[in-house]
Amino acid sequence: MIVIMQEGAQELQIQQVVEKLVDLGYDIHRSTGVTRTVLGVVGGRIIDTREIELLEGVDHVVRVTTAYKLASRQFNPEGTRIVLTNRSRRLEIGGDSLAIIAGPCSVENREQIQAIAGLVAGSGSAILRGSTFRMPFSPYSFPGLGEEGLQLLREAADQFGLFVVSEISDREQLPLFSRYVDILQVGARNMQNFNLLKELGRMEKPVLLKRGIAATLEELLLSAEHVMAGGNRQVLLCERGIRTFEGAETTTLDLAAIPMLKRLTHLPVLVDPSHGTGRRDKVIPMARAAVAAGADGLMVEVHNQPERALNDGAQSLYPSQFAQLVHELTGIAKVVGKTLA
Amino acid sequence: MIVIMQEGAQELQIQQVVEKLVDLGYDIHRSTGVTRTVLGVVGGRIIDTREIELLEGVDHVVRVTTAYKLASRQFNPEGTRIVLTNRSRRLEIGGDSLAIIAGPCSVENREQIQAIAGLVAGSGSAILRGSTFRMPFSPYSFPGLGEEGLQLLREAADQFGLFVVSEISDREQLPLFSRYVDILQVGARNMQNFNLLKELGRMEKPVLLKRGIAATLEELLLSAEHVMAGGNRQVLLCERGIRTFEGAETTTLDLAAIPMLKRLTHLPVLVDPSHGTGRRDKVIPMARAAVAAGADGLMVEVHNQPERALNDGAQSLYPSQFAQLVHELTGIAKVVGKTLA
Amino acid sequence: MIVIMQEGAQELQIQQVVEKLVDLGYDIHRSTGVTRTVLGVVGGRIIDTREIELLEGVDHVVRVTTAYKLASRQFNPEGTRIVLTNRSRRLEIGGDSLAIIAGPCSVENREQIQAIAGLVAGSGSAILRGSTFRMPFSPYSFPGLGEEGLQLLREAADQFGLFVVSEISDREQLPLFSRYVDILQVGARNMQNFNLLKELGRMEKPVLLKRGIAATLEELLLSAEHVMAGGNRQVLLCERGIRTFEGAETTTLDLAAIPMLKRLTHLPVLVDPSHGTGRRDKVIPMARAAVAAGADGLMVEVHNQPERALNDGAQSLYPSQFAQLVHELTGIAKVVGKTLA
Amino acid sequence: MIVIMQEGAQELQIQQVVEKLVDLGYDIHRSTGVTRTVLGVVGGRIIDTREIELLEGVDHVVRVTTAYKLASRQFNPEGTRIVLTNRSRRLEIGGDSLAIIAGPCSVENREQIQAIAGLVAGSGSAILRGSTFRMPFSPYSFPGLGEEGLQLLREAADQFGLFVVSEISDREQLPLFSRYVDILQVGARNMQNFNLLKELGRMEKPVLLKRGIAATLEELLLSAEHVMAGGNRQVLLCERGIRTFEGAETTTLDLAAIPMLKRLTHLPVLVDPSHGTGRRDKVIPMARAAVAAGADGLMVEVHNQPERALNDGAQSLYPSQFAQLVHELTGIAKVVGKTLA
Repeated sequence: MIVIMQEGAQELQIQQVVEKLVDLGYDIHRSTGVTRTVLGVVGGRIIDTREIELLEGVDHVVRVTTAYKLASRQFNPEGTRIVLTNRSRRLEIGGDSLAIIAGPCSVENREQIQAIAGLVAGSGSAILRGSTFRMPFSPYSFPGLGEEGLQLLREAADQFGLFVVSEISDREQLPLFSRYVDILQVGARNMQNFNLLKELGRMEKPVLLKRGIAATLEELLLSAEHVMAGGNRQVLLCERGIRTFEGAETTTLDLAAIPMLKRLTHLPVLVDPSHGTGRRDKVIPMARAAVAAGADGLMVEVHNQPERALNDGAQSLYPSQFAQLVHELTGIAKVVGKTLA
Repeated sequence: MIVIMQEGAQELQIQQVVEKLVDLGYDIHRSTGVTRTVLGVVGGRIIDTREIELLEGVDHVVRVTTAYKLASRQFNPEGTRIVLTNRSRRLEIGGDSLAIIAGPCSVENREQIQAIAGLVAGSGSAILRGSTFRMPFSPYSFPGLGEEGLQLLREAADQFGLFVVSEISDREQLPLFSRYVDILQVGARNMQNFNLLKELGRMEKPVLLKRGIAATLEELLLSAEHVMAGGNRQVLLCERGIRTFEGAETTTLDLAAIPMLKRLTHLPVLVDPSHGTGRRDKVIPMARAAVAAGADGLMVEVHNQPERALNDGAQSLYPSQFAQLVHELTGIAKVVGKTLA
Repeated sequence: MIVIMQEGAQELQIQQVVEKLVDLGYDIHRSTGVTRTVLGVVGGRIIDTREIELLEGVDHVVRVTTAYKLASRQFNPEGTRIVLTNRSRRLEIGGDSLAIIAGPCSVENREQIQAIAGLVAGSGSAILRGSTFRMPFSPYSFPGLGEEGLQLLREAADQFGLFVVSEISDREQLPLFSRYVDILQVGARNMQNFNLLKELGRMEKPVLLKRGIAATLEELLLSAEHVMAGGNRQVLLCERGIRTFEGAETTTLDLAAIPMLKRLTHLPVLVDPSHGTGRRDKVIPMARAAVAAGADGLMVEVHNQPERALNDGAQSLYPSQFAQLVHELTGIAKVVGKTLA
Repeated sequence: MIVIMQEGAQELQIQQVVEKLVDLGYDIHRSTGVTRTVLGVVGGRIIDTREIELLEGVDHVVRVTTAYKLASRQFNPEGTRIVLTNRSRRLEIGGDSLAIIAGPCSVENREQIQAIAGLVAGSGSAILRGSTFRMPFSPYSFPGLGEEGLQLLREAADQFGLFVVSEISDREQLPLFSRYVDILQVGARNMQNFNLLKELGRMEKPVLLKRGIAATLEELLLSAEHVMAGGNRQVLLCERGIRTFEGAETTTLDLAAIPMLKRLTHLPVLVDPSHGTGRRDKVIPMARAAVAAGADGLMVEVHNQPERALNDGAQSLYPSQFAQLVHELTGIAKVVGKTLA
């Protein structure tokens, strides 16, 4: 922590700040400049910097350490790779591979999810998504099929040798999810549900953590830290749009988060252009852009009949669009040195 | 729903939109203008307007109905008043009364909470707050005293004839909370934890619902609707700052939300200037401003020894500041036709 | 400037940063901690901190000095008061006085501006506003009366002993404005038109500088510095709402800017609740709130016939509303130790 | 305009709204639904919709027409192509070509700009950029070389057969700029300087209009309309980042603006990843992403010696980075059906 005193702060004020910090168990290095004094503060317990900022004569306080450790790039400079295996294949997320997660917004019935699983497998993608325990904005919307949905999702995935990811929204669902899915997804609204994250930290399955729509990158990494602190180091981060002044019904997909996260953390970075844009005609260009910007993977919604989808049909691709997209992504991945996983 | 076609949309495109809507069970009223055609759409099930917006020739679609009903001003034009009673008094929130909820960030120990309860009662305020099951950003922070905290809070409140509010962060805590508190608080991060809201809808205690830092007013009201749809009509809304470009470590307190909410809903509107500003020196002016803007109440953090507080000391008022503030609020309340409850 | 190295930065990296800084003419104070090294950097020319941040091994760089000097609180700890005098009165803005600036959005004709000047004077307010050289969003909107408007505004003000403020949008208008107005207003869209600000720095009239809708407080103060650097120390700051996710057609009035600016600068702080909210029914509560939060003054739109106003009638108060508002403001001002100027 | 009445609005209220609108010269189509009444409003002069929204019984008002006409996609469904020609070549911006504008932040001296012009030409790019009349945030920063800068820029461009773009910040500079540049650039801070835009509407050179950091896409198009209304139809739009909660010292590059603008307007869409991210290590991935998302061109800062640049060195690419980037962009362009112009 560095304490920057105001220009013209009085000696007495500086002394009081120093005393307070010494009381709190810190060592102080004082630099007296021409215009102002700066205090370097070392050791002691972590305190709320605002408390120091409110002292007389203090201009502002700067934190030197990040609040996350395990998630920081320094912790694993090589970069983390997450490995999934099933009978038919071994999949690596991170490194030089590009992972494509695809599927419908919700699992609706056996026929639908099987048809889509076929599409996904046919495109060369390896991970099937589908919501089963939904938490819709309106109490009257389709809440998902629950356990039946998980069963159908697993069954369809197995038929095509795919891995499965689905969103968990409550601690109580953990036993069920650990039975059926390969990756546990945490939605944007639950990014700071630390009660849930703590439980996931005890699991042995990868966690796909979506960025909250108002979360800074530091907050996202702090949430990853909550999972990792429990022992589970397999965390995938996912950008899905942030709330800005541009349209309250949509979000602004923050693709610059990709290079920033690559600098800050060793964890793989995915992008969800479907929720991040909310409209099919924006999903395709933004999916391409995410790969061009260096994402380790995508999560894309595709549906065999988007206009009949129970949820989010508007952001689901048609089968032919999805096939065309994967083709384009393969070309872009090559330019940035990645290969479709 | 109103569908606004593009200028120069072709007759065939218009026909296709009409057919699609008729298929979905809607009645259509078509207005053909000089420059464009507008379709009024009535009945049918609720659909995702984006689905229509993506059709050829459509410019945009406007929703006519709000997604919330029970929370809307029309549902109770007089305005809702929430009544609390205990042995020593009857308290009304809403109408012409100004409710002040005060207390520490966290319940720390018996001595602390009793000292603060005395301060609160002495100022003429009637409701004591204090966190007990915390969900801190860092896994190393003080997590709260749990049930012991609830007991101490209740005990201190009873000693001074005060009511009690505390934040619940997980469904599992419900049995405990219903034993100890008078008002169930839902924090900003849980505003869209619909699993939790659904349970609170079955309770017979008032729910104090904080606005999420990225939530629009419509989303706040939709969350209130989730509670009300379960049968519990006693909801208090609380503005606590929104995330804007102005400082990622703080929020912008949106006081204009007060007159807007007064127009949109019948529910009482409170303001939390402590979390909304994060610094003691901003809490006081913003507390006064909230009352001047017409808030039905405030939730303010006060501590007997802010510099020793385990959490959020920087935003807690000193006892003398709190007393002075309540004095000023009384003066401002009179100007806007309210009286301290 | 303080350079915070990454945890685990290598000695060679640290040496290279030190050399680069020494090259640039800086003195370096190095602190080697357990987990990381911190470099205090003193003197030299001002450089772009990003240049250092991009060096190998650097975590981030913190600026210690503010970019504004003349506008900073330390420059004039007592606080600046701006004095206006005419034949009939002496008016002080700042200190314990509350200044109310009122008038129509645009000067429309002699009858209108005289009627409104009468209203303003009758309420006890001392400053008349009115736009004359407008810069409307649509090329088809009313552009203002130009010089004739300035004449009518001056004439109406003189009749009632009022001072005059009007917005200047281009350097070329300066000769005209200096003839007619007492305070030169710079609109939010011109807050960073440094060509214009430079010219205003040479004037001997107060400048009322509105905050841009995407401007941080530091940027606002840097714009004030541009004026002050030219020799003109009479600057009034005005909060008028910032752009947030809450409604692209309106802005969020950031009243917490008042206490923040009071801490950062010695310049008086005004608030414009009319442009800041855009609707008459929000103007009144937010005007009260601004005074309760400690503003030194308000700029409010009032019209003798709002429903016939050529611009912004929706945010203009009716005469009776304005009178009632001034009455309420007087009551609130008393609570915060101010008197209507 | 469509007026949506509140649920339960009284017949008298509806009548009053209708009368007011008829008074204003509108035709009204009334639809009486089960829950509410909707009024379709046709003709009359353009009015401020807020005026109607404030009437008793009105829920909200929806504008049907966009405020821009000439800039809308419908006005030129094929898409606008802007053609530049000089002795050595003909360049088209828009359509299937990808235009790369590159150069230093500022023109500093003959040697620098000639070296960079050589780099730009060598990469196959056709347009040279360089600021000459700067408007820096600090009064002490390098203000640019002025006319001398324009001369050097032109001279260097001519030597390599390049076109020239430079930013104009004041109407007074127009005669100079029209002598030296091929494209007139309007900076983000001047996007709503309608006085300047009006003058540019009379020119016969293309205008490159940057999006303001707080501007919606509709506002950007309305600014383009100001230019186009004057007769100049050659407008290039440029996304350069918007201000969000993510870091006040940077902006969030809104690449989804590309597909959105493609839908709304026929004008070519460029992206400036240099100003849009502010750091060299983010410029490269975001440049690639912009092309992948369908941009018609890029504006990128490159410098022969970034660490010695007078401004914005941190966001300027090294020569070898620039060459590598152009190579990668060529690969991505092919995937999206474009060719380097």
